[in-house]
Amino acid sequence: MSPPPTDFTAFTDIAKRVNNWGRWGPDDEIGTLNLITDEVVREAASHVRSGRRIPLALPLQQDGVQTGMIPGRVNPLHAMVQVNQEIFGPGTVACSDDVVTMGLQAATHWDALTHVSHSGRVYNGRPANTITPHAGATFAGIDKARHIVSRGVLLDIPRALGGRGTDERLPGDHAVTPEDLEAAEELAGIRVRAGDIVLVRTGQIQLCLAGDRHAYAFPSPGLSLRTPEWFHARDVAAVANDTLTFEIFPPEIEDLWLPVHALDLVEMGMPQGQNWNLEELSTACGQTGCYAFLLSAMPEPFVGGTGTPVAPVAIL
Amino acid sequence: MSPPPTDFTAFTDIAKRVNNWGRWGPDDEIGTLNLITDEVVREAASHVRSGRRIPLALPLQQDGVQTGMIPGRVNPLHAMVQVNQEIFGPGTVACSDDVVTMGLQAATHWDALTHVSHSGRVYNGRPANTITPHAGATFAGIDKARHIVSRGVLLDIPRALGGRGTDERLPGDHAVTPEDLEAAEELAGIRVRAGDIVLVRTGQIQLCLAGDRHAYAFPSPGLSLRTPEWFHARDVAAVANDTLTFEIFPPEIEDLWLPVHALDLVEMGMPQGQNWNLEELSTACGQTGCYAFLLSAMPEPFVGGTGTPVAPVAIL
Amino acid sequence: MSPPPTDFTAFTDIAKRVNNWGRWGPDDEIGTLNLITDEVVREAASHVRSGRRIPLALPLQQDGVQTGMIPGRVNPLHAMVQVNQEIFGPGTVACSDDVVTMGLQAATHWDALTHVSHSGRVYNGRPANTITPHAGATFAGIDKARHIVSRGVLLDIPRALGGRGTDERLPGDHAVTPEDLEAAEELAGIRVRAGDIVLVRTGQIQLCLAGDRHAYAFPSPGLSLRTPEWFHARDVAAVANDTLTFEIFPPEIEDLWLPVHALDLVEMGMPQGQNWNLEELSTACGQTGCYAFLLSAMPEPFVGGTGTPVAPVAIL
Amino acid sequence: MSPPPTDFTAFTDIAKRVNNWGRWGPDDEIGTLNLITDEVVREAASHVRSGRRIPLALPLQQDGVQTGMIPGRVNPLHAMVQVNQEIFGPGTVACSDDVVTMGLQAATHWDALTHVSHSGRVYNGRPANTITPHAGATFAGIDKARHIVSRGVLLDIPRALGGRGTDERLPGDHAVTPEDLEAAEELAGIRVRAGDIVLVRTGQIQLCLAGDRHAYAFPSPGLSLRTPEWFHARDVAAVANDTLTFEIFPPEIEDLWLPVHALDLVEMGMPQGQNWNLEELSTACGQTGCYAFLLSAMPEPFVGGTGTPVAPVAIL
Repeated sequence: MSPPPTDFTAFTDIAKRVNNWGRWGPDDEIGTLNLITDEVVREAASHVRSGRRIPLALPLQQDGVQTGMIPGRVNPLHAMVQVNQEIFGPGTVACSDDVVTMGLQAATHWDALTHVSHSGRVYNGRPANTITPHAGATFAGIDKARHIVSRGVLLDIPRALGGRGTDERLPGDHAVTPEDLEAAEELAGIRVRAGDIVLVRTGQIQLCLAGDRHAYAFPSPGLSLRTPEWFHARDVAAVANDTLTFEIFPPEIEDLWLPVHALDLVEMGMPQGQNWNLEELSTACGQTGCYAFLLSAMPEPFVGGTGTPVAPVAIL
Repeated sequence: MSPPPTDFTAFTDIAKRVNNWGRWGPDDEIGTLNLITDEVVREAASHVRSGRRIPLALPLQQDGVQTGMIPGRVNPLHAMVQVNQEIFGPGTVACSDDVVTMGLQAATHWDALTHVSHSGRVYNGRPANTITPHAGATFAGIDKARHIVSRGVLLDIPRALGGRGTDERLPGDHAVTPEDLEAAEELAGIRVRAGDIVLVRTGQIQLCLAGDRHAYAFPSPGLSLRTPEWFHARDVAAVANDTLTFEIFPPEIEDLWLPVHALDLVEMGMPQGQNWNLEELSTACGQTGCYAFLLSAMPEPFVGGTGTPVAPVAIL
Repeated sequence: MSPPPTDFTAFTDIAKRVNNWGRWGPDDEIGTLNLITDEVVREAASHVRSGRRIPLALPLQQDGVQTGMIPGRVNPLHAMVQVNQEIFGPGTVACSDDVVTMGLQAATHWDALTHVSHSGRVYNGRPANTITPHAGATFAGIDKARHIVSRGVLLDIPRALGGRGTDERLPGDHAVTPEDLEAAEELAGIRVRAGDIVLVRTGQIQLCLAGDRHAYAFPSPGLSLRTPEWFHARDVAAVANDTLTFEIFPPEIEDLWLPVHALDLVEMGMPQGQNWNLEELSTACGQTGCYAFLLSAMPEPFVGGTGTPVAPVAIL
Repeated sequence: MSPPPTDFTAFTDIAKRVNNWGRWGPDDEIGTLNLITDEVVREAASHVRSGRRIPLALPLQQDGVQTGMIPGRVNPLHAMVQVNQEIFGPGTVACSDDVVTMGLQAATHWDALTHVSHSGRVYNGRPANTITPHAGATFAGIDKARHIVSRGVLLDIPRALGGRGTDERLPGDHAVTPEDLEAAEELAGIRVRAGDIVLVRTGQIQLCLAGDRHAYAFPSPGLSLRTPEWFHARDVAAVANDTLTFEIFPPEIEDLWLPVHALDLVEMGMPQGQNWNLEELSTACGQTGCYAFLLSAMPEPFVGGTGTPVAPVAIL
């Protein structure tokens, strides 16, 4: 049965409330990343206490998270073009070189603001056809988002919800709500603020790490349609989590597909990260009780890219 | 005319002096990255003064730095596999997705320790045939080097040498010597120490930025055969610069090809970075007089990779 | 100075005269390939006299004909993913496997009817937007053209024109006219008829074979704007030649780009072949005096492809 | 339990009997393709009776036959790099261009003689290390096999075996024996002779066409270890069939993997074809009673390739 019309009204209403078009000028291409000021970064650096570095990227390999469900989003194919090749003659130093073919959104990645469009528009009200097969995203491509370093905050939902999660992993039908986010804030003893990059842990990636990428993909817990407004209220710079779909999938409202993508990327202009491995970070934060850190998550600057692999690191 | 035999002796002698095989155990796969301790990182964070972030990667695009001179090392080919595709039906949120094919060493990159071998050996004395066409580098691949964050120090050679450089760019036949490095230290008012990542600016990349990738490639200033010993004495964790070849090319000694690669990667186990754009950083350091900063330069964890694209950021 | 308006009128007039939309029904996706009937093929087989087979494809390699002038049309990048890999254990049979990345139109290829569009239309009047980034050509893709075997006829223009060519190669500004085609027919003692595949030799590929792909690319002799009508009158099934651009380039009429592509592919629905090496065939036909043969030039059936590599063979 | 030593003796004995090393000189790189003389081709052309052309290649698409079981052998990834791009300015002819990444052995293909090695040797006794990651097969690569046109003969095993097959498809554990081949010859009323290309139908590809590529892959009927001797006795030029593995899989003798590959490719120097769709051809031959035809199956000339996609056509 289809949802009642009010549902779509709900989406439209939220869209209006979180819309940031024009907020940083008509030509802005980086949206909420504008909220990461030098001052935010300077303060973020003060969160480095132990100097421990925790990488958050999954290994890049052919046996990656993609199942073939999303056409064209291929796992990394790594091939050697030279192996110990003595390019300057016998007995000289030998070189090894490699090539890769991969979907930019195949593994641990950032969505560019232009990864989705709706109603013919991308972020800042630009026409969706600014994305072309030839040049990719000529407006708000990932190459414009070249400064993603800020304070990172881990909101560890299964831990915050205590007994409600299963083995510190949310069930597949759990939509992470603003209330969940606030419970995790309370656990962390921290308040999310302007310019923060929020990492929302669901524990779902455990399925992937255990070798079952199909279970990982679907059904998946993820962010609720109600979260963009919360992120907007807090002026968050970016959000990443440990799922394939970012938002709960299948969606909360029947036939309303990827509403969180549309709200975050198109309306707010806030980058999303997916397939981030937050397990080691969760353990570390649990041990120290500190859930804030310096986060460096620089996009690879693919010109026209609508996404990019990223190798984020939390510096605690 | 071939060089006299003493030249090769010189290489062998240096190789013995800088050799780190076994220093961190027989199974170590990350070499001098071991020198980046938590304490080093903690201290590095204290260098963040303004919070300014300067990205050091070149744009990733088909019109990149590769000229075709190195077989198989192809510039990034970016293609869209979906453009505003309404994958859930007409009127739904529309997705854009991209794929890329590229040489891992094509643009701004890290060499893995296994990027070169000599005399049948890679770092730590392992046989070169631990690199296979099938699996790539099964020992000391780039996927093992997942924590590259440390104090960065810019050694700005053309600036340090004053009038000797041309338009703040070293001439194509300039081998950067230990004396040059120390002149730059003096300019910076800083002493390179254990665990530092040293960025050696030659200015060569200006040629590439001006559109002449052939002039950029060759001839190229770069590190002298005499520098590995200096880096070894200071216990540097990694070195990157703004050239295609890293070391001076053509080489200082005829028929002795890529000696610096062999010394840095194989003997010392010290990662090298190439094609880093240090121009904006040079300007910023010149203005503030501060040449040390927090550097995050996380490798993309390609399993078995002998190199990787990297999007480094200096946080000042 | 721009051309006078009458020039474009000329194009429009020719377009009307050669248009085949609807000729084989509104749903037809193969155009003039319909002219290759079983009878044509049966008769073509009777041209096999010696049994000699002459391959017409250029080698597929990274050092191929593309110069980088056409964005995205990359030369074949061949990489091994397994080299003598004993996949079933030590001492078992060892396998070697390879992957390739290439532009479908990079080397010896067929253009699909959908390789170009004009005024928003492709062949048979279908909208150009039947080509999508996601699925490629959903109408009249190369996968529909799966039966390209017919009588081949070599029209050897430099030989037919005798002393007018240079070293049996047309000069770069020579537009091949209907009169040239008829001179070559006369030389061959043959009349082109319905269902034939015509191979028009210019000799231009000698430049490529001699190693100068830039000279090969431009300027280039090629088919004149006046030839589509001639091909239409003869009901030719397909035409291929030994140039990068197929038609003369730069074009005969200033600012009228690729008119032959538009007439052949869009209006007539006749496939075009490019970068075919006709040198050995020319020698053989010259020796025997026979310019007709059985030609097999099966497209690789890339679903949605707007072109395809082809390895044609003339069987004499 | 391991097989008794006699089994391997059996392999070694057959290897000696079918060995063709040196038969066409020490430098020969095409093996049994030498058996296709001009006379053979001339005679083959006489088998064209109706002029009907039957293509034998599977569509090339991401949803292809590969299941991921063979690392690196990826299904074709087709992407558009231009879609109706007006490269010469607004209103000009618009171009569409595509790129592909694929395993050369991923779909309907020929194995080059160098696709497998055993005991450190490839065809003609050359060392297996003539295949390099850098250059691929420098000896006997697929680029050397550029004349594959000959008489094709369909040996339709399930039809010849009558009630023994299931729905005209061999069961998964059926090893096609010399006796089966002769039963099919008898059905066809034809005797396989020197220079023929033999197409052995099992019907297995029906599983793939029905959408179950896992069932198609394994278990699979295929050629018995005993067939190479039969092909050798008849001096067959090449053999192709409609399975993923070519030979029966799992193998007839435990732990003796890919013996037919080793015998055909390495010892005899006879190319093998896999994933050929023989269903339409089977129907046509059954209707006409003619099982011989002209077969054109030209390899794409990938320099150094150990295999290649092929778009074969039977001309009846």
